[in-house]
Amino acid sequence: MKSLNVTQKLIQSHLIEGEMRPGTEIGLKIDQALLQDATGTLVQLELEAMGLDRAKTEVAVQYVDHNLLQTDFKNADDHLFLHSAAQKFGLWFSRPGNGVSHPVHMERFGIPGKSLVGSDSHSCAAGSLAMLAIGTGGLDVAAAIAGMPYYVKMPKIMGVKLTGSLPAWVSAKDIILEMLRRHDVKGGVGKIIEYYGEGLKNLSAMDRHVIANMGAELGATTTIFPSDDQTRAFLKSQNREEDWSEIVADQGCSYDLEDEIILDDLVPMIALPTSPGNVVPVSEVEGRKISQVVIGSSANPGLRDFWIAGAIVKEKTIHPEVSFDINPTSRQIIQNMIENRAFANLIKAGGRFHQSGCMGCIGMGQAPASDSISLRTMPRNFPDRSGTKDDQVYLCSPETAAASALTGEITDPRNLEKRYAMGYPEYEAPRLEIINDDMLVPPTKNNSEVKLKKGPNIKSLPEMEGLKSEYNLPVLLKMGNNISTDEIMKAGAEVLPFRSNIPEISKFSYTVIDDTFYQRALKAKEKYGGHIVVAGENYAQGSSREHAAIAPKYLGQVAVVAKDYARIAWQNLVNFGILPLEFENPDDYDFIEQGAFVTLKNLREDVAEKATIKMLVKNKNDEREISLTHSLSDRQVDLLMKGGVINDFKEQLTT
Amino acid sequence: MKSLNVTQKLIQSHLIEGEMRPGTEIGLKIDQALLQDATGTLVQLELEAMGLDRAKTEVAVQYVDHNLLQTDFKNADDHLFLHSAAQKFGLWFSRPGNGVSHPVHMERFGIPGKSLVGSDSHSCAAGSLAMLAIGTGGLDVAAAIAGMPYYVKMPKIMGVKLTGSLPAWVSAKDIILEMLRRHDVKGGVGKIIEYYGEGLKNLSAMDRHVIANMGAELGATTTIFPSDDQTRAFLKSQNREEDWSEIVADQGCSYDLEDEIILDDLVPMIALPTSPGNVVPVSEVEGRKISQVVIGSSANPGLRDFWIAGAIVKEKTIHPEVSFDINPTSRQIIQNMIENRAFANLIKAGGRFHQSGCMGCIGMGQAPASDSISLRTMPRNFPDRSGTKDDQVYLCSPETAAASALTGEITDPRNLEKRYAMGYPEYEAPRLEIINDDMLVPPTKNNSEVKLKKGPNIKSLPEMEGLKSEYNLPVLLKMGNNISTDEIMKAGAEVLPFRSNIPEISKFSYTVIDDTFYQRALKAKEKYGGHIVVAGENYAQGSSREHAAIAPKYLGQVAVVAKDYARIAWQNLVNFGILPLEFENPDDYDFIEQGAFVTLKNLREDVAEKATIKMLVKNKNDEREISLTHSLSDRQVDLLMKGGVINDFKEQLTT
Repeated sequence: MKSLNVTQKLIQSHLIEGEMRPGTEIGLKIDQALLQDATGTLVQLELEAMGLDRAKTEVAVQYVDHNLLQTDFKNADDHLFLHSAAQKFGLWFSRPGNGVSHPVHMERFGIPGKSLVGSDSHSCAAGSLAMLAIGTGGLDVAAAIAGMPYYVKMPKIMGVKLTGSLPAWVSAKDIILEMLRRHDVKGGVGKIIEYYGEGLKNLSAMDRHVIANMGAELGATTTIFPSDDQTRAFLKSQNREEDWSEIVADQGCSYDLEDEIILDDLVPMIALPTSPGNVVPVSEVEGRKISQVVIGSSANPGLRDFWIAGAIVKEKTIHPEVSFDINPTSRQIIQNMIENRAFANLIKAGGRFHQSGCMGCIGMGQAPASDSISLRTMPRNFPDRSGTKDDQVYLCSPETAAASALTGEITDPRNLEKRYAMGYPEYEAPRLEIINDDMLVPPTKNNSEVKLKKGPNIKSLPEMEGLKSEYNLPVLLKMGNNISTDEIMKAGAEVLPFRSNIPEISKFSYTVIDDTFYQRALKAKEKYGGHIVVAGENYAQGSSREHAAIAPKYLGQVAVVAKDYARIAWQNLVNFGILPLEFENPDDYDFIEQGAFVTLKNLREDVAEKATIKMLVKNKNDEREISLTHSLSDRQVDLLMKGGVINDFKEQLTT
Repeated sequence: MKSLNVTQKLIQSHLIEGEMRPGTEIGLKIDQALLQDATGTLVQLELEAMGLDRAKTEVAVQYVDHNLLQTDFKNADDHLFLHSAAQKFGLWFSRPGNGVSHPVHMERFGIPGKSLVGSDSHSCAAGSLAMLAIGTGGLDVAAAIAGMPYYVKMPKIMGVKLTGSLPAWVSAKDIILEMLRRHDVKGGVGKIIEYYGEGLKNLSAMDRHVIANMGAELGATTTIFPSDDQTRAFLKSQNREEDWSEIVADQGCSYDLEDEIILDDLVPMIALPTSPGNVVPVSEVEGRKISQVVIGSSANPGLRDFWIAGAIVKEKTIHPEVSFDINPTSRQIIQNMIENRAFANLIKAGGRFHQSGCMGCIGMGQAPASDSISLRTMPRNFPDRSGTKDDQVYLCSPETAAASALTGEITDPRNLEKRYAMGYPEYEAPRLEIINDDMLVPPTKNNSEVKLKKGPNIKSLPEMEGLKSEYNLPVLLKMGNNISTDEIMKAGAEVLPFRSNIPEISKFSYTVIDDTFYQRALKAKEKYGGHIVVAGENYAQGSSREHAAIAPKYLGQVAVVAKDYARIAWQNLVNFGILPLEFENPDDYDFIEQGAFVTLKNLREDVAEKATIKMLVKNKNDEREISLTHSLSDRQVDLLMKGGVINDFKEQLTT
């Protein structure tokens, strides 16, 4: 048998369909699923609509870590709903404030060799434990929970060899920042990044989490580490040594691509606004005045990360003009921070402690002051993500963050040796952490009896209609090229609270482009049974949000006719039963007017047979028949006939 | 010399004007001032507008405890502004997250025998240390900081004798809830409540804080406790024994009113929605299901209050359907909670810890789920104050709150003895607390050099015009009776962020009544130099917010013509230079139409001479001259001529 690397071993052991040839679709068996609350409410509504009896995965956990700020009833209601839904569908429920999904999952559920999908882009963090862990859209996770395979194009595998060991004041964050400096935010697209080499010897599992987590920022499908003695020590510290097994690359295995980092050569690194790929050595920007430092998030979630910050500020006071925000990642970690004095050190020095959760990492609190620098150990610094327009967020290690909190300016932590006569504090991990599972509510046995708790803002998913053969529909909108999902369904504080209420969120459909759309779509649905929209190239690029498909579907969208589509959104349209058509002759785009009427006949049949679809377009003053096509697989055609994935699953249940 | 009670001693020693006859105005020398951020931004802008060089009070402290949720740049910008303003005007600055103003002030600045005004209604909490401490409007606090006396009508003094001692599971909160059960939310209006008697012996200074704080809910001007051995022990625990002096009532002193509470007879009490005066014994509502418990706030801020909750939940887990929110009141208290294990106990049991501040007490986070009960140790449960519409907030002691968090239903803590075989945990206060003043930034010496840091949302106060003699103005609004300040300037998440931006907040003037007002006022200001409004009885009742005067003034409001006025709002109008006129013949109210034009001549002179003011009213179809009057003091007339208090102070500075 051929020598395999760790990634190949993990994929091979979960391969249900396809073969491991880069670029071809593979179907994977999924062992574990992870949901967070911001995407999870929709996933749970999808499970409800599917009529799922009980999760088929070995472990599925609903976390609540994003929407913890409760300024009205909506988030609190969502928490109660998610709890009831977890109980109903046989999931674990991690209660609000119990912690950020990724570190909690790693600590309490992660098992080397297992596969995981998560409805959060940083789900790849579990690769730190030699798991095959992929972040994806909510409906993919719902399907996995329902026992279906997860489909993905087989990525290339990039082997990154780590040699040597990290110098003082340099830590795991600097490794991933170095990777981002080299490869930027698209360097990992279509790739799985596997780390190997003797440099791994001194990287703890939590250090690896830092690197695997921010693999998402490289655009990588996921990141994989081997399962070795460090993995074993971590699981032992979690009192779960029995979950450990060794998974290392075979002698003589190979990678599609190669890179190497000599750890001894690394220096403290920092990502400048407004991209995680905008990385330079800290020394290059030293001295810039800052107004905020934030420690925590899923990118630096471990006990060590808080401990080192505490050790640096111990018996000192942070700079008077810096807000020093501490964002502990789990209740378990807080308990351990109390024991190892990190908590007291940080509080005494002036830390503002917040409840365990994602907080400012997703713009949910602690937005920085305007026109000032915020230094964060978080994974992302996209423009305005912090909640402050034109923000200046820099990303760095806990060492750099804590050093800068003391001085009030960006500071290379190596300079603490001179400025404060301080040696690099040496961390000793506890052999056994304090374990706290009390806020993890296990699945209940009598799940079928559980009633979903729906506050007034939580509405079941509407029924989805399958494709019909004949339509006479208005063209409600004609759009240009590169329309983003933000234009189809904007995010932000006004819209997000309605993520579990499709009728309500649908009112925001296309408002960025045309705020009469909602009313016109309602009328068209009543009068004509729906509508179509027309777009140019790269329709629905950007964020993967499913609401950009489900809300138009709710308003009666039968089809989009575009020159071409962004990949994820194209899949989302099909998943929710909207037909993504393409022009045979792109020049026909110019002919169609907004307000035209189109007639489609024999549509189901033509779509199924992949025949040319004839559409009669009646403009105000002229008409013409144009030819359309699609590039759907047979599986996708089948989904469309049924009105999407949810209906498909329901049908499977009843047959 | 006559025997004096403690209140009379405190007033006498600060009396500058008037005499201690209930109902007559007295002027008091103010030693200390307390600002919080939600009201403080306006106070600081007022100090700027006044041109103050440096605070004249012995101690003035700017706290930041209300607006700690940072969902965009505005609150963070306010924090930087408040810091710079504190430095500029010679105030202490308590940094964001350092704690709630009242307990921090008591711990670090409170001195028996001193007077204090605070721009927060719970400033009366400092009465726990035998201070004469009164919550009031921002401009009153600004004036006090500028060295002017504080004017108030001499209240009646109610002596409340405490005898015996509290039974197990009953604590200070139950005493003030019993007072509220007896006297309801108006029972203290026009009164100072002074506690005395041997029952005080076992009430710590922090227990007294609980009672003094919620004196605000009785409507009392303030609450006074003597300074005795408990006071001394408290100051000693704060390493400030030298600030202690004995202040007790003279033998044979008397009170205007009397009441008595036999402590031994008390049982755990609870305030039902939606008034702090709606009090019954806990046993009457036992068993009602709850979804949230919140521990903390200025009404139960002390180390003991957290410790007892921690002791009750120790080694247990809170009920799976209860969110257990812990709201520590200061960083110093957190440090002490770490030492006495309260912190670890609460976290382990499932507590969600939040940064030190007011949080849900003023609807800034942790709003409860809809249609469910939230049990809180906070001082107020007015409708929707939590942030959730139709909320069901109950107020109780930490004992009752912690017991209920365990059971998931309202629970009389005395029943823990049976349910959990638990004795009442006995608290031993540390003789010396961990002290932490590191986040209290002292006034700077070179304050005149400090520049105010104003983010884009912080605007200096506009200039205020003094009264002129002749006007020809439109009647922009005709309102009915009992118009509240909420209708003149609403609160809430949409409006509050503009509290330091008068031009912006003025857009919300009267929007509840008429959302065309702002545009019409702008036009009238440009075309006619201003406007007047007409109202029925009790104009501008409700909250004391100054924005209900300053925003209309900014939009050109010259006068209000009403049947009569709510007391505080009437004062606010004058303070900001709006003339509050009254009908000589209230029937004339009926004559004036919205849209009418009024002509006023010889106005300055008539106002100054308290002569009848003739106003010609031109309606669309008819006209008539009507007679108006006012009930202003000479001092107030003088303020109006100048355009309000700020201009008055500026004039004093330059003469």
